This record gives sequence, C-alpha cells and structure tokens, in this order.
Amino acid sequence: MFVARTSTRIPLSKGTVLQVSRVVSSYGGYGKSSLSQPRAFSTTRRAGLREYFPQPETEMIRKTKPAWEHPEFAYEDMKTKIFYAHRKPADFSDRVALFMVRMLRWGTDIATGYKHDVESPKKIGDANVMAATKPYSMSERKWLTRFVFLESVAGVPGMVAAMLRHLNSMRRLKRDNGWIETLLEESQNERMHLLTFLKMAEPGWFMKLMILGAQGVFFNSMFLSYLVSPRTCHRFVGYLEEEAVLTYSLAISDLENGKLPLWTHPNFKVPDIAVDYWKIPEDKRTMRDLLLYVRADEAKHREVNHTLGNLDQNEDPNPFVSEYKDPSVPHPGKGIEHVRPTGWERKEII
Amino acid sequence: MFVARTSTRIPLSKGTVLQVSRVVSSYGGYGKSSLSQPRAFSTTRRAGLREYFPQPETEMIRKTKPAWEHPEFAYEDMKTKIFYAHRKPADFSDRVALFMVRMLRWGTDIATGYKHDVESPKKIGDANVMAATKPYSMSERKWLTRFVFLESVAGVPGMVAAMLRHLNSMRRLKRDNGWIETLLEESQNERMHLLTFLKMAEPGWFMKLMILGAQGVFFNSMFLSYLVSPRTCHRFVGYLEEEAVLTYSLAISDLENGKLPLWTHPNFKVPDIAVDYWKIPEDKRTMRDLLLYVRADEAKHREVNHTLGNLDQNEDPNPFVSEYKDPSVPHPGKGIEHVRPTGWERKEII
Ligand SMILES: [Fe+2]
Ligand SMILES: [Fe+2]
Ligand SMILES: [Fe+2]
Ligand SMILES: [Fe+2]
Repeated sequence: MFVARTSTRIPLSKGTVLQVSRVVSSYGGYGKSSLSQPRAFSTTRRAGLREYFPQPETEMIRKTKPAWEHPEFAYEDMKTKIFYAHRKPADFSDRVALFMVRMLRWGTDIATGYKHDVESPKKIGDANVMAATKPYSMSERKWLTRFVFLESVAGVPGMVAAMLRHLNSMRRLKRDNGWIETLLEESQNERMHLLTFLKMAEPGWFMKLMILGAQGVFFNSMFLSYLVSPRTCHRFVGYLEEEAVLTYSLAISDLENGKLPLWTHPNFKVPDIAVDYWKIPEDKRTMRDLLLYVRADEAKHREVNHTLGNLDQNEDPNPFVSEYKDPSVPHPGKGIEHVRPTGWERKEII
Repeated sequence: MFVARTSTRIPLSKGTVLQVSRVVSSYGGYGKSSLSQPRAFSTTRRAGLREYFPQPETEMIRKTKPAWEHPEFAYEDMKTKIFYAHRKPADFSDRVALFMVRMLRWGTDIATGYKHDVESPKKIGDANVMAATKPYSMSERKWLTRFVFLESVAGVPGMVAAMLRHLNSMRRLKRDNGWIETLLEESQNERMHLLTFLKMAEPGWFMKLMILGAQGVFFNSMFLSYLVSPRTCHRFVGYLEEEAVLTYSLAISDLENGKLPLWTHPNFKVPDIAVDYWKIPEDKRTMRDLLLYVRADEAKHREVNHTLGNLDQNEDPNPFVSEYKDPSVPHPGKGIEHVRPTGWERKEII
C-alpha cells in the first residue's frame, strides 16, 4: 500500500492558519507524527507552514493576473445542472479510453489511499444518490491528498493537445480552427485548482515524488497517444472528468452530511487565490462553495472533451468559441447554462 | 545551394487572385516552370491554387475567432517607434545566444535563397539607413519564401517555454507568475503571421519538407535548451527577433523604394485573415501596412524576450501582464507606446 504525508492547513482570516498535520500512512514508519488536533487561531510559523507561492509583490509591481478570466457561473446552475453522468462507449476507441481511465482510477485510489463508503454510483442505480455501503474512512486530509494528486496531472492533457495542435498547424500549414484556446484554458483552469488546494495542504516528500513520477509518465503517454489518435485522447479525458465530477460530488455530499467538520468550521476561509480567480462573492466563500466551483469546472471539461471526441479533428471548428448562425438555439459555449454532461453530438452543432 | 519552389498569390478583391508562380531554383531541375508573368484578375482555379485553409463555415457555425485579441497598435507608433536595434551581449550566456542566432541566420539565408543588397546595418554604421552595397536580387516571391520559412519556426519557442513552465508549476507546486500567458500569446501571434503569408504564397514540396525538418530540430533543441537555461533561451529569442525586425525593415524599405511592384499594385488586398486579426482599418490595407504590423509584433517579441532574459526565471512576475504600484511611470505592457528595443532592465521594473 502506498502512503502519503500531508499537512492540512485551514486558512482563516488573513495571516491566521489552522493546522492539522498527520502521517497518513497506516504503517507510519517515517515522518514525525506531528500534532493531530486542530489548533484554532494559531499564528505560529513553523518550517512546514512557510508561505506557499506568495502572490509576488515587488517594489514596483502590485499583482499579476492569471491568463484567462474565469467565465462566471451562476450559483444556482452549479447546484442544479452539474451531476455525475456517464457516456456509453460507442466504438472500440471509446472502449480503449474507458478501460484506460478505469486502470488509472484503480492506481490512483491506491496511491492516494482513497477508500470511500460509496463504492460507485453505478452500483446504487442512481448516479446522484450517494448511499454508503462501507464504513466512512475519508477525512479532510485524505480528500486534499487526492485533490492535489489529481489536479497535479489534470493540467497535462490540455497543454499537450494544444502544443501538438499548434505545431501541427505550423507544420502542415493549416488553420487550427480555434481548438488550441479551449485546450490551453482547460490546462490553466486545472493548474488553478492545484494552486488553490495547495494553499490548504502542503504535500510531504513522498507525495511530491509521486507527483513528479506521475507527470513524467502521463506527459509522455499523452504526447504519444495524441499523435496516434487525438479522438481517443479527448474521449479519455472526457471519461477522466466523469471521475473527477464523481470525486467532487462525493466530497460535497460528505461535507453536507457533516463528515468533514474542519471544512464547515465557521472560521474557514477560501484562499485568496480562489476568491480572485473565480470572483467568488463575499457570502459564498465556504469550502462547499469552492468545491461547487471546482466541480462545475470539471463538468465543463467533461463536456468539452466528450464533444471534441465527437468531431473531425482536422476540419471541424471548435464549437466552444464559435459564433453561431442562429444564436437563439442552445449551443456550446464557455458557461454552464447549457452544459451537456455527455457532450454534444457532431450533427447538432457542425 | 538549397532551392525552394513557391507560387506567389496576390489576393485582390474577393475571389480574384493574381498569381505568379516561378521555380526559384537556379538549377530548375524539378517542378514545372509554370507561368512567370502576373495574370491580373485571373479567376481560374488550378490545382496549385486551391483555397488554403478556408475560414471554416459549417451548417451551424459562422466563424471562429483566434484565442488572443491583438493589442491594437497606433499607426504612427509603428512607423516611428519600431526600428532595428541590437542589444550588446553582457555575459557568456548572452554570447552563446548571439552565436546561435548568427549560425541560424547563416543557415536560413542559404535555405531560403536570401541575398540582400544591404548586407547588414552594422556595416553601414546607422542601423536604420538601408544603403545598398550589392546588386538587388530579392523579389516578392523570394521575400515570401523567407517569411513563410521564418514564421513556420517562430511559433516554436513561445509554445515550448510556456509548456515547460506549465509543467514546472504543477510539478514543483509553485506559481508561474504570469509568464505562460505572454509566451503563448507570442506563439499564437507568430502562427497568425504564418497563416497570413500562406494566403499569399503556397510553398512547394521542397519548402514543406524544409519546414518539417526545421520544426523537428528546432522544437527538440528548444525543449532541451530551455530545461538547461531558460535565461539563455529568452536572450536567444531576443536576438532572433532583432533579425526578424531587420528582415521586415529591409522588405519595407525595398517596397517603399519601388523594388517590389507586385506589392504596390493598386489592386493588392491584404488577406481577410490579417484584416480580422489586426483589425486593420479600411484605408490601411496595403502590403506596406501589413509589413508594418508584422514588424511591430516582432519588435514586441524582441522587447519581451530581452526583458524576460533579464529576470529571475523562477521568482519574478511577468512585467508585461502585471499591475504597477505607480501606473503613471512608463512600464512594460502589451502595446507599443513604451516599446523598448533592447528590453527593460530588471531594476527598472521589479
Ligand atoms: Fe481540476
Ligand atoms: Fe478537469
Ligand atoms: Fe513573426
Ligand atoms: Fe517574432
């Protein structure tokens, strides 16, 4: 069994941090078992508590914005229009993609010590009723370990696909038709997820090593696979995002059911980096809200990649940044008003 | 001596194309020597004249925009603030970068059959007096060959740097501080240059092969070099862009001196893709104007990369997308009001 050491940090008001640091491993064979009780309103700065990637303010520069503004999501839409869904594989390429995701899911569960009491929504018939079948063994810290690990690889496929399409456009002397933008935006969005969760949990050396290895393997596999079959790669990311939506749905449901008390602590504050990026209103800065934002992003990636997987990779324009002849008909876009859990079919939009 | 076959197309009003197609090689050993006289107002569609990457309009979709809007440049600024300039190498890393650019320049001159009557601005003392020292042997077609070849590799370094910084941010769990955006924007801008020139010249098979090989070599060298020394790579791109500004300055000066009559033909129209991208006003759609836009972009890349080459690669924020404490002091930005030919020094802006 793999192990990972994480210290959980709960950002409260400015400069105040609530820290929980535990050794995750059941072996507990390394790492000092530092304190395991929350220390409310501690202002101590310890080695493990150093300020992660501070907003760089220099003598001359006040701040630096992220490249893409986040498309604002309506709060109600994030609650009602985002849910777990599964696209049935239609051909061999789809089945390869699904199989790969299941393999990866299995490996990641082991690596991040993930064990949820809801085994899988498939087993209980309705995807969105989260019924426990096993004793609850997750915690804030374990969730963060999983989030950090997942998000540290999630930014890879979009960047690889964008880069290959860019090189392809220049080499083959043809237009890209707008795909690069959405792929880059996706990869930036995933990186913002990672940076946000890192503000709450500082991974230990073992986790850092795993992140390093996972990126190396994942980058190279995506690079080669995208050269062979971009369609399969987009479907693969679509299925991966199905799992991401499920992960965040389960975390939200656990939080709502009072299983994650550190995240419902009244002094919990969403990190500034997240407030700035999602432009989160003053009264929506709980951990639950943050998870709703992240989950909506994942659902958007799921829609984007399932849709791109339905298109002609060389000829079709990117339906998410195109202008439609009849704008009154619902069509793909950057928001979630018309989000499609399993993607748009080619004939609907091209 | 290398050779390249290109057919020059002069877009006139919609659907009308003026074509000049010649075999560039002095050997002339392959390729049909098709007509060598301009055929004004020809509407013939021949095999070699197929519509290059048409704007994809589908049943449902009208158009698809490029990812980044071009920052609008004041017309007067493009004429007065953009000129050839050379940054003196200050250390070993700079000299390596400069040496590499000189090597590449030499190879590219041979590969694109480039031979200009102004040998180098250095030889004549003043960088911006273009005095001929040899007989003129360039032509519209030869210039286009050079532009297409240069632009087909120019989009590589920005994308490679952006990708490596993205992966680095996720792997090292740290902020990128805004660099990725400017690097990606640069690579898109270069790709738009390429697509624009391709609307005027269709490269022959030999040129296509050279583009393929050059991309392969350049991508891999940039990838490895950026891992070793990103600072040297940015300086290298800075020097490369010095050459790009020189190339476009010479082409503009040739055009102004009546040496390129096909480009001053009263029916010459800038391709739609360029009008859309640079938002070129109705009365500024001559080839000279287009070259002014492209040259200003190159001068911007020169400024950006020389500046990035002066910074701490890991800690400093990207000065081109940052908010300044005192906005009234001239500082780096996306426009060319305060363009700095040789870049900004670190102490001025950080
Ligand atoms: Fe994510
Ligand atoms: Fe995602
Ligand atoms: Fe360029
Ligand atoms: Fe350039």
